[in-house]
Amino acid sequence: MPNPTAAILIIGDEILTGRTREGNAHFLAGKLVEQGITCREIRIVPDDNDVIVAAVRELSSRHDHLFTSGGIGPTHDDITADAVAEAMGAALDVREDAREILAAYYAARGVEFTAARLRMARIPEGATLIENPVSGAPGFSCGNVHVMAGVPNIFQAMVEGLLPRLTGGAPLLSRNWQVPRPEATVADELRRIAGEFPDLSLGSYPYIQEGRYGTNLVARGTDPALVEAGWQALKDAFPEGQ
Amino acid sequence: MPNPTAAILIIGDEILTGRTREGNAHFLAGKLVEQGITCREIRIVPDDNDVIVAAVRELSSRHDHLFTSGGIGPTHDDITADAVAEAMGAALDVREDAREILAAYYAARGVEFTAARLRMARIPEGATLIENPVSGAPGFSCGNVHVMAGVPNIFQAMVEGLLPRLTGGAPLLSRNWQVPRPEATVADELRRIAGEFPDLSLGSYPYIQEGRYGTNLVARGTDPALVEAGWQALKDAFPEGQ
Repeated sequence: MPNPTAAILIIGDEILTGRTREGNAHFLAGKLVEQGITCREIRIVPDDNDVIVAAVRELSSRHDHLFTSGGIGPTHDDITADAVAEAMGAALDVREDAREILAAYYAARGVEFTAARLRMARIPEGATLIENPVSGAPGFSCGNVHVMAGVPNIFQAMVEGLLPRLTGGAPLLSRNWQVPRPEATVADELRRIAGEFPDLSLGSYPYIQEGRYGTNLVARGTDPALVEAGWQALKDAFPEGQ
Repeated sequence: MPNPTAAILIIGDEILTGRTREGNAHFLAGKLVEQGITCREIRIVPDDNDVIVAAVRELSSRHDHLFTSGGIGPTHDDITADAVAEAMGAALDVREDAREILAAYYAARGVEFTAARLRMARIPEGATLIENPVSGAPGFSCGNVHVMAGVPNIFQAMVEGLLPRLTGGAPLLSRNWQVPRPEATVADELRRIAGEFPDLSLGSYPYIQEGRYGTNLVARGTDPALVEAGWQALKDAFPEGQ
């Protein structure tokens, strides 16, 4: 059975204006590989309800999982919960379980539970909460859409709590072979090896280091013996590598 | 007249597997802001012809510009030129002007002009070349699709060469006001100010620094006086900031 597929949807004007360099997708992509879930797309969209609704509908219907990051805070530009509820056809309101989590969190810290903070207890009907050990306000899974915060350490904590709940497949394995030659000079041999290993993905990634061209060759696959054999073929073809 | 819009399409398995942390989209997004071109979407897709073709068609028809990064090197997994040509209905073959650029580049460096390198002279019919001062092989603009390399320093050099050719609008300006308060406690005032400045985009970005919560407030717009006025309103509302 092929591995489940996923998309990641990052929501926030601050990334599209170059203000913030996105890192949550990179973090999650690495975790999905370990879990045997194949990430097929990362999409970054602005804080625009119609755009988010359309993206959630498209990506959640096309993939087994959709993970979102951003837009679930207390302010007026935090519209992700509304958009996801609309996209999934679920009612959205303050939910008692989420309200209790927030109330307990703030009470324990002597922090006032304001109306703005109560916004973060608005959870779509039928959704499962995702724990937020960092700042209380939970994320949620609505159908196959997993909605998480944009602040990196909160996002990461939510991912760690969520992923064990999801069924993955065989982890994608990869081995790297670094060759001190320009990419063009490895192309023919690489194409030949790729033909010999149709069940592996063989990638080549050129780099420039201290003015010299080199290429990282990567063999990827889910069968450990096959990945090892493909990597050995790369080593044999380019013995000057490391 | 509203500013032109753009999307950025990043092509490469290595980003979706978490191997590489993408930085080209972040770089270009910042440049587009300066040029007055509004980036509305960033999308990252695998080295899959059908997926790239569909994304190029959708994003190039929806926006004034589409910028792509990755997949134009010499190896078998470099399929971006083929996919863009297919999406735009243009023939693809070795083009004499591109071949001459590569021949001269390699001749000057005593490097062999192999069949693999000749792949990089395949340019869609009617496309305009984008100069590559780093490693010779050009990018190209095919209609409103601007195809550039994935290696960061080559991508950046291509962007610098391309952008002056494109007509932008009023640059998006932004001013930041950092407030040492949790995001929830600025929400009400921020919503009020956003209502007073409907032509500005007001964003709030929570952070945690040395265990303390704070929020960066950002006023964005194209009218300098309005951005200044919005920023002043933020300062007045949260005088403890900086």
